[in-house]
Amino acid sequence: GEDVLTQERAGSNVPVEQLNELLFTREVIERKRRILGILKSHQVFDKSQNYFSGRIERFERALAREKKLRLLIKEHNWDPDEFRTATELVSEPGPYGLHDSMFKVTLDGQGTPEQQEMFLTLANDYKIIGCYAQTELGHGSNVRGLETTATWNPQDKTFTIHSPHLTASKWWIGSLGRTANYACVMAQLIINGKSHGPHPFVVQVRDMKTHEPLENIHVGDIGPKFGYNTMDNGFLLFNKVKIPHISMLARFSRVDPATNAYVRQGSPSLIYGTLTWVRSTIVMQAGSVLARGVTIATRYCAVRRQFQDRDAPQGEKGESPVLNYTMVQIRLLPLLAATFALHFTGAAMMALYQESQKKMNTRDASKDSSMRRPGPEETESGSDILADLHASSCGLKALSSTIAAEGLEACRRACGGHGYSSFSGIGSWYADYLPTITWEGDNYMLTQQVARYLLKSARAVLANKGPANDTTRILSHFHSRSEVGCAFDIIGSDSDLVDAFAWRASFLTFEALKHRDEHKKPWNDLLVDFYRLSKAHSQYMVTKSFYEALQSQATTSKINTDTLELLKKLFRLFALHTLEQEASEFYASGACSKHQISLARTNTVMRLLKEIRPHAVKLVDAWGFDDWVLDSSLGRSDGKVYEDMFYRASELNPLNRITVDPYPDSAVLFRRVEGEVKSKL
Amino acid sequence: GEDVLTQERAGSNVPVEQLNELLFTREVIERKRRILGILKSHQVFDKSQNYFSGRIERFERALAREKKLRLLIKEHNWDPDEFRTATELVSEPGPYGLHDSMFKVTLDGQGTPEQQEMFLTLANDYKIIGCYAQTELGHGSNVRGLETTATWNPQDKTFTIHSPHLTASKWWIGSLGRTANYACVMAQLIINGKSHGPHPFVVQVRDMKTHEPLENIHVGDIGPKFGYNTMDNGFLLFNKVKIPHISMLARFSRVDPATNAYVRQGSPSLIYGTLTWVRSTIVMQAGSVLARGVTIATRYCAVRRQFQDRDAPQGEKGESPVLNYTMVQIRLLPLLAATFALHFTGAAMMALYQESQKKMNTRDASKDSSMRRPGPEETESGSDILADLHASSCGLKALSSTIAAEGLEACRRACGGHGYSSFSGIGSWYADYLPTITWEGDNYMLTQQVARYLLKSARAVLANKGPANDTTRILSHFHSRSEVGCAFDIIGSDSDLVDAFAWRASFLTFEALKHRDEHKKPWNDLLVDFYRLSKAHSQYMVTKSFYEALQSQATTSKINTDTLELLKKLFRLFALHTLEQEASEFYASGACSKHQISLARTNTVMRLLKEIRPHAVKLVDAWGFDDWVLDSSLGRSDGKVYEDMFYRASELNPLNRITVDPYPDSAVLFRRVEGEVKSKL
Ligand SMILES: Cc1cc2nc3c(=O)[nH]c(=O)nc-3n(C[C@H](O)[C@H](O)[C@H](O)COP(=O)(O)OP(=O)(O)OC[C@H]3O[C@@H](n4cnc5c(N)ncnc54)[C@H](O)[C@@H]3O)c2cc1C
Ligand SMILES: Cc1cc2nc3c(=O)[nH]c(=O)nc-3n(C[C@H](O)[C@H](O)[C@H](O)COP(=O)(O)OP(=O)(O)OC[C@H]3O[C@@H](n4cnc5c(N)ncnc54)[C@H](O)[C@@H]3O)c2cc1C
Repeated sequence: GEDVLTQERAGSNVPVEQLNELLFTREVIERKRRILGILKSHQVFDKSQNYFSGRIERFERALAREKKLRLLIKEHNWDPDEFRTATELVSEPGPYGLHDSMFKVTLDGQGTPEQQEMFLTLANDYKIIGCYAQTELGHGSNVRGLETTATWNPQDKTFTIHSPHLTASKWWIGSLGRTANYACVMAQLIINGKSHGPHPFVVQVRDMKTHEPLENIHVGDIGPKFGYNTMDNGFLLFNKVKIPHISMLARFSRVDPATNAYVRQGSPSLIYGTLTWVRSTIVMQAGSVLARGVTIATRYCAVRRQFQDRDAPQGEKGESPVLNYTMVQIRLLPLLAATFALHFTGAAMMALYQESQKKMNTRDASKDSSMRRPGPEETESGSDILADLHASSCGLKALSSTIAAEGLEACRRACGGHGYSSFSGIGSWYADYLPTITWEGDNYMLTQQVARYLLKSARAVLANKGPANDTTRILSHFHSRSEVGCAFDIIGSDSDLVDAFAWRASFLTFEALKHRDEHKKPWNDLLVDFYRLSKAHSQYMVTKSFYEALQSQATTSKINTDTLELLKKLFRLFALHTLEQEASEFYASGACSKHQISLARTNTVMRLLKEIRPHAVKLVDAWGFDDWVLDSSLGRSDGKVYEDMFYRASELNPLNRITVDPYPDSAVLFRRVEGEVKSKL
Repeated sequence: GEDVLTQERAGSNVPVEQLNELLFTREVIERKRRILGILKSHQVFDKSQNYFSGRIERFERALAREKKLRLLIKEHNWDPDEFRTATELVSEPGPYGLHDSMFKVTLDGQGTPEQQEMFLTLANDYKIIGCYAQTELGHGSNVRGLETTATWNPQDKTFTIHSPHLTASKWWIGSLGRTANYACVMAQLIINGKSHGPHPFVVQVRDMKTHEPLENIHVGDIGPKFGYNTMDNGFLLFNKVKIPHISMLARFSRVDPATNAYVRQGSPSLIYGTLTWVRSTIVMQAGSVLARGVTIATRYCAVRRQFQDRDAPQGEKGESPVLNYTMVQIRLLPLLAATFALHFTGAAMMALYQESQKKMNTRDASKDSSMRRPGPEETESGSDILADLHASSCGLKALSSTIAAEGLEACRRACGGHGYSSFSGIGSWYADYLPTITWEGDNYMLTQQVARYLLKSARAVLANKGPANDTTRILSHFHSRSEVGCAFDIIGSDSDLVDAFAWRASFLTFEALKHRDEHKKPWNDLLVDFYRLSKAHSQYMVTKSFYEALQSQATTSKINTDTLELLKKLFRLFALHTLEQEASEFYASGACSKHQISLARTNTVMRLLKEIRPHAVKLVDAWGFDDWVLDSSLGRSDGKVYEDMFYRASELNPLNRITVDPYPDSAVLFRRVEGEVKSKL
């Protein structure tokens, strides 16, 4: 194993550190190294038992780790970036997770200064430990359908929080199961018998001393899951619980205690800004989430040897690394390319977001009343910077998390039988990542929002009043050439390749528009088309972002020409492989010919695999995962795959401390456990 | 929940029992019901703690269940079919698994009468508990590369079994980790310094009394896995262990103790028959494996309501069952169709296999020496019945297990957030099924065998000496029309639809042949084409089998016309949806036009979804899974989804017996456990 990876590395001129710095900057890398050193020095973060423990033990240890992180923050005076780095390195969901990410963020974004004073200070101090309780047993995606009620009591100026049915029980609420003593509860605000829709309420759920549930509150953990078992996702039922007026987070709307009137104020579009931000981070993370799996699988497939090449010269004897087989390459190398594609796309999204926030703040200051709308569906197409960004973030969140999740499973399979062992390190990572497909907008449903936006943009283009953004640009261009068609040199020109993606997305947009506006097809009949459309548009954005990143000064100034050329090959592999997977849409739109697709498939992609292959190990090295972080026998950077598998199985595995009685006619199951004699059942 | 499914059922005229009998026969259904009653009456089979327990507890319980099953066999005098039914109903891998399936089968198939007398009798009695130890840490797919040696010692007429390197350690061996006391070990036979390739040896590994490992044997469990954790997959290292002459299973080859010569005898093609048989059962099972997931997701999506239809009339108020959304239908209903497609394909394979065995036995009796060949690669194309069947079984094993595994994950996702809960019952079932993609021939690698066979058949057709089987029939037909092309009415005619699949598979075969024989491309450069080719050919076989099953008297005589029509719609949905997914290959081959694909996609498939939708719940009912077997909150046949989720979370979940100390400055983690006060760490 060892020599193999050394040889692999010797065979490639990729400057690993340079590329690593391009991805993360020197500062971030340095920070990671420093914090990793600290984590490794504390026994509680030791991972050696992770794969062996049951749910309760894992939860207990996760809680211990969260507590330790808190102490380390104080001890080392970590800033939020340093703290985020630490949790990324620990790489497991923990019981404080939602407190930091959602509870405090909601207080911060939706609380008044008074409320922040009251709750946020305690929350920052971990006296209050909170969670974000929106989803119910009966409702997730459809937030307007939530059943929990918060009824305003004019007499004593309180709200009564109540769960009228079993399906109103809050469900899936991270950190709530065992840990939180507070919850930010989304409930239907009812004033004088009239519902005003879901609003956020800060509610204490457990006693601050005993940590037992308060009266008339039924709260607990929802049980084991496919992954995420170090987190205590919880349920919560209220039996007419009274809470004070201050509990309703009142930055954007409140009940006037004097008049009992419902009052709106400020710009809730900021909330949608947060949603967009969260989705952009998912895009950004998708690259590195996938990169872990790709790192593990690539290293292992370089070490793993199986069979001789059928056409190997007579003299050659040894078996081939399975990474030499094109059928392994076609599964792994496009995913390797995708890690970079997603990374650059995420970075571009973040930049766009920050830019838009700046503009928004300027506008906000001028109190633009046209912004006071409840949701992105209602914003004017294009006129609003957020609308474009929001749609992009929806589509890209769906596409990138699907690529990452399915890519991880492809990596696991590429490792053959050993991929199925927990020690591969891919399975648990995949299982923990899977909910990303469902939360922050179910990936299938998000595509409806993207399609809606694209249809609006297309209508604007047809009406000749489209605003100037990239979406209307590509749609206008397509429309202007409806009688001329196109000719893209997809194999010879990278920019043509990007344009072909734009063409296909535009084609699908106008097709969908025809179905909806001309043929008057019901919305529901078009969902499948919308899904395809959203995917096509998002693939265009990824391709474009990757392309542009490689053109930009920010990139070219940081890496040498050879590396830039190699990244361009990764770009081509990603784009052409995607194009090939979606070939029928590219045909149908006329973006390319049968012959081009056939050439791309049989020549170009295969040649790119060959050209990238020698650099595969160094390219994954450039992602810079420490062995401690990967916690994988197969992905060890020194290639000692088998030694590590064996050590874990033979030395660490607790099942081997048990001797069974194997005979069916004996009722004894475990005969001997760790030296002591035991007889059970 | 409850009323919903009642209404769903009232809205469809599918005769559930009739269809259930078509799938399984009345006899099998009756058997299932009887055995299920027995299992339910024994506490040890109670499933209520399954999702909560850790590995050791689950393994212990699995062992207890296996023992109980043994006693029940005796008590009720179960025949092998009844026993298989029982294990299917228990639905979890158990520590005796490999003893029954592989150890005894190997003794039976490869042992001499003397060896069977010696080992099989004890094995049947569970005095000897065995496993099948082929795979090593360093070698799985490439069996010829195994490193364990069995060296013949002429002096004392023994073999020395030895593991020369760490990578020679046996690995993944089911039932070996803690349970087995014997192993059938595949080792390189070495006589007088010369290796004769891998051969099977029966080796005792643990003491019959103490169950401790014998001297010079290092054996244990390989640790936790992505699934299959009720099974003790094991490792095994030998340090020069001597075993007697009788240990080498000698039906097909042996060492003559007098002359020390290596002697071959008999027809090992029977072994390949077994492989073909095993793969055929995987095809057959794939349908019902998938049907579990489809049953759960379909029922849940009928119960789950979310959002109002955007185009719903003003008056209508309630939310829609998510099964009404076409984006949910397109994910689930083609899988529902696939369950039937795979079932009928498996049945057809089984029938072909039995037929071929009959013919083989006739031939075997005549001692046809041309049969004495080591493997299917070396058989003459077409001249051998086994070759065709073997290739089909390889391709279909790969395709069907991939469909089932990926389909289960699609079902899980279709359930939204709740699909992620263990109580969905899909996750663990999926995780336990996943190795099927890798074992009995890695799905990616199997496609090489299929392609090799198809290339040979195509060469035979070109040389005008193809034997008469279906493969050569479709290849000849394609070849004969190479100057004429084709015209398939894929939407209007079911048989044309099947022919279009044949055309595309044939097209890809001749394309691949051109690359290999004319362009002399290296084998390795063609692996991706081979993968596509194998998939295409297997999809043709599934489509054809499904089509033929619906034409056959055996089917039409057992169900009424409406049901037959509905099954034909499922056939069309399966075929057209598959065609649409693979559209670019159908274009490229000329099997259909852009316009046909576009019509299939936007009209036909969407219409079929609508037509099948009302029958979805009854169609899954027809698979006849008992609630006890599904063990799923979401899949309950009475639709009490939320009640069951809540009960399991709130009442059964052991984590809720623990009160934590949530504050970071306290070192206490678990403050109170089940009433007792506890302070740890
Ligand atoms: C691990 C995990 C952690 C979570 N943490 C939290 C938390 O901390 N706080 C919190 O509030 N929530 C949390 N959630 C809940 C999560 O946000 C929801 O599960 C998610 O929003 C999906 O909603 P749902 O489960 O109701 O899906 P549903 O809306 O019920 O979807 C079910 C199916 O129907 C489809 N569907 C639904 N409506 C439509 C439509 N209109 N058109 C087409 N298809 C449709 C979906 O695509 C899906 O396939 C968590 C969930 C998980 C799995
Ligand atoms: C749960 C489980 C239970 C098992 N039980 C048993 C048991 O009881 N007894 C037993 O003996 N074994 C058992 N096995 C082992 C199993 O049979 C092997 O894992 C399987 O044969 C795959 O072999 P491998 O792991 O060596 O994969 P590898 O051959 O190492 O494959 C690794 C990767 O390389 C690719 N690859 C390899 N060679 C080529 C090639 N020539 N061309 C193209 N691609 C290639 C594969 O597609 C795969 O992606 C079990 C495995 C599992 C997961």
